[in-house]
This record gives sequence, structure tokens and C-alpha cells, in this order.
Amino acid sequence: MAKVKGLRCRECGRDYPVEPIHVCEFCFGPLEVVYDYEEIRKRVSREKIENGPKSLWRYVDLLPVENPTVGLTAGFTPLKKAEKLGEVLGLRNLYIKDDSVNHPTLSFKDRVVSVAISKAREFGFDTAACASTGNLANSVAAHCAQAGLNCFVFIPANLETQKIYGSLVFNPTVVAVEGTYDDVNRLCSEIANDLGWAFVNINIRPYYAEGSKTLAYEVVEQLGWKAPDAVVAPAASGSLYTKIWKGLKEMKEVGLIDSVNTRMYGAQAEGCSPIAQAWREGRDFIKPVKPDTIAKSIAIGNPADGIYALQTTKESNGDWETATDREIIEAMKLLAQTEGIFTETAGGTTIAVLKKLAQKGAFDPDEVVVAYITGNGYKTLEVLDGHLSEPVRIQATLRDFKEKVLAKV
Amino acid sequence: MAKVKGLRCRECGRDYPVEPIHVCEFCFGPLEVVYDYEEIRKRVSREKIENGPKSLWRYVDLLPVENPTVGLTAGFTPLKKAEKLGEVLGLRNLYIKDDSVNHPTLSFKDRVVSVAISKAREFGFDTAACASTGNLANSVAAHCAQAGLNCFVFIPANLETQKIYGSLVFNPTVVAVEGTYDDVNRLCSEIANDLGWAFVNINIRPYYAEGSKTLAYEVVEQLGWKAPDAVVAPAASGSLYTKIWKGLKEMKEVGLIDSVNTRMYGAQAEGCSPIAQAWREGRDFIKPVKPDTIAKSIAIGNPADGIYALQTTKESNGDWETATDREIIEAMKLLAQTEGIFTETAGGTTIAVLKKLAQKGAFDPDEVVVAYITGNGYKTLEVLDGHLSEPVRIQATLRDFKEKVLAKV
Ligand SMILES: Cc1ncc(COP(=O)(O)O)c(C=O)c1O
Ligand SMILES: Cc1ncc(COP(=O)(O)O)c(C=O)c1O
Ligand SMILES: [Zn+2]
Ligand SMILES: [Zn+2]
Repeated sequence: MAKVKGLRCRECGRDYPVEPIHVCEFCFGPLEVVYDYEEIRKRVSREKIENGPKSLWRYVDLLPVENPTVGLTAGFTPLKKAEKLGEVLGLRNLYIKDDSVNHPTLSFKDRVVSVAISKAREFGFDTAACASTGNLANSVAAHCAQAGLNCFVFIPANLETQKIYGSLVFNPTVVAVEGTYDDVNRLCSEIANDLGWAFVNINIRPYYAEGSKTLAYEVVEQLGWKAPDAVVAPAASGSLYTKIWKGLKEMKEVGLIDSVNTRMYGAQAEGCSPIAQAWREGRDFIKPVKPDTIAKSIAIGNPADGIYALQTTKESNGDWETATDREIIEAMKLLAQTEGIFTETAGGTTIAVLKKLAQKGAFDPDEVVVAYITGNGYKTLEVLDGHLSEPVRIQATLRDFKEKVLAKV
Repeated sequence: MAKVKGLRCRECGRDYPVEPIHVCEFCFGPLEVVYDYEEIRKRVSREKIENGPKSLWRYVDLLPVENPTVGLTAGFTPLKKAEKLGEVLGLRNLYIKDDSVNHPTLSFKDRVVSVAISKAREFGFDTAACASTGNLANSVAAHCAQAGLNCFVFIPANLETQKIYGSLVFNPTVVAVEGTYDDVNRLCSEIANDLGWAFVNINIRPYYAEGSKTLAYEVVEQLGWKAPDAVVAPAASGSLYTKIWKGLKEMKEVGLIDSVNTRMYGAQAEGCSPIAQAWREGRDFIKPVKPDTIAKSIAIGNPADGIYALQTTKESNGDWETATDREIIEAMKLLAQTEGIFTETAGGTTIAVLKKLAQKGAFDPDEVVVAYITGNGYKTLEVLDGHLSEPVRIQATLRDFKEKVLAKV
């Protein structure tokens, strides 16, 4: 028996085989991987998982890959009890899921990409590509290098220098497109139809997206096989947020946990918050926006999974909040200065939103709350220009030290 | 019974109690932690370690800390089988120990600092400090933030911007000293005598340095409880290199493995290679040099543990090699483009030296060789200026894509 039954259209329910396709031919709905949970229930157990590899591949029974060959060290990142930040926010059981140290490219994208590139190899592709806000490009480039695949990454031309270097070093073809991410994505969708390439977030998207479920699985295992009471996660396309929820429900479905009562909170940057706006206005559809925020990694104005994200919020009794650029930077500093974790703008958005939600009384002080930190601060260093204190410059003398440093503290 | 007996002078053998001291009062030799291995042998087992925390603290029985309170997520980084790089170098069992994703600050320093700051808290300090080439400062600043300690980090003023930001974000006092690391270190030694601060790599150094042993422990566990045949590790002060060797010998001493026949290879940048030079010239003493290399994180001209590093090389039948700045950059790219791992200049030095050693025939093709990657490429991005290809800039049109990208591949 196979663990994967096939693909199914999220809109009309039509079934498709396991192939590099992502859209329903009839209604243009997105395709999703469908599993045989009876079969998986027989395969998995807490013990088997605990004795599995120290990577996200310990959850291979719940992923649409038969034979993982790339990204074998991805995932399995720390869940840090956030005592000091929890104190600031009045939360006694706050945890940070820290994908700022994901392997190898320091963002949660290493999860989706290790799944996508492993799958692309199973399909027999020799070239992989992506439309990216930066982190995805870094990860696709790194995993293609590992796998020996040709690689093309498409990014908006105005991306942070750090993220551009972080792709170039792996030697893909980096295509910098004039325009927003949404322009890049539109172009890539056209291209994907023409060429026999594995676009990880276009024709491989159904498989790719499943990788984010491991963010749920790991947290549940790390909490001692319990689902959290609430999670806060950032959303760009809305995929990660939606898949965390899917992952939680699946763990119950296959008998790894007894219950899920997790409320799903979504975080967006004020300057690009199409999902949060739809939620606020009680809409079940997305009005695309033109992004204007420093949180470039989550600046998607026309989110592919936006409507499914809204369904997740409804189903889980969650909520959405947004953060301004200033709040994002303050939250990056707050997380660093309380927990010693240096995250990028997306993580700043999450923490700023966590703070607002805590202040609104969204959480009971004893609830188990998990904030997902999805990327690393070194990749968006330039946003900190002018927002940090300056080093104190001295000569290498005791006297200078005493006058310029000691006298001032 | 206690696991730690006390401190002992490496030169004259005099014993000292467990206190924040680092130099022998009689001969000025450095003090080292001495353990009761009989007692530890009773405490440890492979099984107990395997069931321990997923961090370096699974090895607490072999560390000089009673009660770890800081850096609880440090260590336990991936050991990646390097198939593609191994092929290039003619090595069938090459592994990368990947501390470029160490938690939380992306270098092996998170190991020594989590030990040092936990110890400093046990001693009751309220202020921690360090003399640093960059990575140490990042890590001390992050761990002081976690611990709520006051923090002062001293760095050479000409450090990479990335590393300065990577400290400032945690809000320590960053003191940028005009001069080399050795000037910084001299100043800090003077200061440490005056003030009641925990200088992690001065008065706390005996405890701090022990953290690097976990680089050996983890690799042995990850190899299925076997010591590698050879390791290549970078050296600045020589501490990490020396302590990997100590860690390997200890594992045999306490019965975790049966034998150690590991050859210890050391890597330095040509522009700052006082240990490698001494080795080449058959000296058992170090002639200080003035550093001139892009590998700033390992640019220590007067290495505190240089002579012990030389002893380690002799004892283990190892060797030293050096890499020029150009070779370092090429090796950073080589590692990225074969293994998808983006390391900083120190890691480039290690890989460049690994390559030279392989070409010299230092390894048998079937030997298990481990290269220690100790830091992350995002922290030394600026050295790549002019060494990477450029993005291809296009408009968001299929036509531009075909003309400017497709036509060129
Ligand atoms: C750091 C980071 N966090 C979160 C996200 C959101 O991902 P999604 O598109 O799945 O909503 C992204 C997307 O690029 C990202 O880079
Ligand atoms: C990245 C990196 N690797 C290696 C070293 C060498 O450390 P040691 O002084 O223990 O030789 C350092 C020291 O700062 C470092 O930052
Ligand atoms: Zn359909
Ligand atoms: Zn002595």
C-alpha cells in the first residue's frame, strides 16, 4: 500500500495522479497531496519517529517523498522556552520555534525545498527553479548544488544584498526581475508552462508545500507530543500558515496525538497584508495589494493560498494582526535582547504581532503559545541601519577604556 | 563525588580550586580543568547520552558546569556526508561538521560561550565580557541577553560590518579598539585584573575552552561511536584544535569508545599562520606575527594555545597547512557549490587546507575524514565582493527572459 493516494483539486475535488502538476484542468483550483491515513497510521509511532534521523525526514511517512536524497540535514531545529520574552508579554509558556538556524540556508524554506528537490529528482528533472522573495532562492540554490541540478532562481530586483549574495554563492543563474514578487511569479508561471523545469513553488508546489507541515510535527514532538494552545506564524502566500494547521490535524488523524485545539494566529506586515485585511473585513476572498514594507521576504500582494489561510483561521478560531515597519524592527530587537535570537524582518513581524495579540488578551497567561521564527537576521541586516547603538571607539589603552567606556556606564 | 577535581597548571602541575582564575601564580602557565574520570566513567553511557537533550548539554557529565542555565539549544549540529566534495577530493568518507548553523549565533563559539556563561552565573558574576575576532562577541552578546547579564565585547575596530551588527543587535556595549586582535586581547587582560567581570576567554578561559570538546563528542556519536581517522580544524588561539583532541582522548578514557587513532590536521590563513610556521620549522615555540588576511575570525598573531596545539599535532601524528586569501575564497565557493553549505573565511581556510592535504596524499581514499566548518558565510559577506557572478537583470516579460536568460544557457 502506498502512503500517497494522489493529488486532489481543493475546489472541485477531482483526482489527479502523482505528477509535476499543480492546477486543476477543469476549475483551475490548486492541487493538494492526498494521503492514505489508514496506511500511515499503521506505519508511524512516536517511538519510530523518535528513533528516526535528526532532521525533518523523521517524518517521511507523512511526506510525499519516497526516497529523500537532498536536504538530509534540514529541519529538527530548536524549540526554545522563551522565559524572558514571556515575562515581558505576560506569557508563562511561550516557545520560539527557531528556524533562523535551519540547515543549510537559515530559513524554514529548507524544509519545503528539501521535499521539493527530492521530489523533483524522483520525477527525473535535471533543472530546478523558483520565484522567490529571497529565502526560497537561497535554499533552492543550495539544494541544487547538493543535488547537482541546474538552477535558475527568479527574484525581485530590489532584494536585500545579503539575500542576493546568499544565492549567488551556490552558483545558480540568478534572474533579477524588475517589479514586485507578484510580477516575478506571474512571469515564472508563464515560463513554467514552456520549459521542462521543476519550478518548486509552481509545478512542484503541491509537494513543496507539504514540507511546512514538519513545523507542526516537530513542535508537537518537542512539547512532549502535545499540540500547542495557540501558534503565531507569518504569512506571505499563506502556505506555511495553512500547512501548520494541516500538520496538526494529521497528527491526530494518524493517532500520534489525541486532540488538537490550537488557535492559528497569522502575522503580516502592515504594508502587505492582503490576508489580514480580508479577515478584518470578513471577506472570504483576497484583494491583491501592492507591497510596501521592509519585510520583503513576506511581501506577496496576491497570495496563492490566501483563501485557504482564511479558512484555517475560521476553523481554528484564530485571528490576524499586522505590524508596521517600525514595529517590525523594534520586535527584531526585542527578540534579540530577551532571547538571544537574531531574526529577519519576517520574524520581527511575527514577534510584533505576538506582542499585539498578547496585549489584546488573546492568550491566557498559562497557555502554551508557539511563535514561529522563520528566518535569520543576517539576511536582512541592512534594515537595521540607524536602528542600533554605535560601537565605542577607543585606542588600545587602559586610560582610553576608563575615560570612554567605564566612565559612561 | 564530583566530576571536576579542580584546575591544574599545564606547565608546573600545581593544583587550584574551581575559581574564576586562569594563570598559575608560580609559573604563569595556563590553568586547565581536571576531571575525575573514574567518577565520570560511572556516570556516562552511550544510551544515557543518546537520550539526553538535543544540544551539547547531552555531554554535561564531561563539562565543568553543574547547572546549565544558558545556551540550552547550543550544539548538536549536523554532520553531513560530503559526497560531492569528497568526489572532487578523492575521499570516499568525507564529512562536514556543520557549525555554520550553530544556535543561536551561527558559529562554534556558541559551544564555548554557553559553557562559559553558565559557569559565570554559577560563580555569581553579573557582567560578562570578551576579547573577540567577531564570532565570540556575537555569541557572548546573545547569551548575555538570554541570561540578563551586563555585557561588554571588545573587538578590533576594522571588523566586518556584518559581525559588528551581529553583536549590536543584542545591545551589549561594543568597544571597537584601534589595533589587531592581539592589541585587544592585551588590553582586556589588563582590564580583567581590575574589574569584577567574567571575561569568558580570559579569567573564565579554563571553563570556556572545554566547550570545544563537544565538537569531538558529537562527531564520534554521529559516526556511530567511532573516532574519525583524521580531522581538519582551523586554529586562531589554537584552543578549539587542542580541545577536539582532548575530547577524543577523554571518550576513550571514560569508556565511550575503544580506541582513538585520529590524526589532527590544523588550518591557518597564510597571512596569519604562527602555529603552522612553527610546525614547519620544527619549533616548539611560537613567534608572534602581525596578521594580514581576510580570515579575520582566525587572525590571532600571538596564539595563547599555540604550543599546546603543536604538541597535539605531534602526539596525533598530524600536520599543518595554510591557505592564501584567494584560496580561501575559492574554497568557500567550492564548499557552497558542492555541498550547499555557505561558510565564512575560517571555513574557507579549512576547506582550502583539506584540499591541499588531500592533494599531498595525506589521506587514504577510504579513511573517515572530518572537516570542521566553524562559522557562517553571512558574517563575512563582504569578502565575496567581486568574486561572484552577477544577477541577470530583466523586465518581467517572457521576451526579455528568452533573450537575456534562455539564449545564454
Ligand atoms: C522568512 C519567511 N517567513 C515566512 C514566509 C511565508 O511563507 P508562505 O509563502 O508559505 O506564507 C516566507 C516566504 O517566503 C519567508 O521567507
Ligand atoms: C569561525 C571560527 N573558527 C575557528 C576559530 C578558532 O578558534 P580558536 O581560538 O579556539 O583556535 C575562531 C576563533 O575566533 C572562529 O571564529
Ligand atoms: Zn478542480
Ligand atoms: Zn604553574
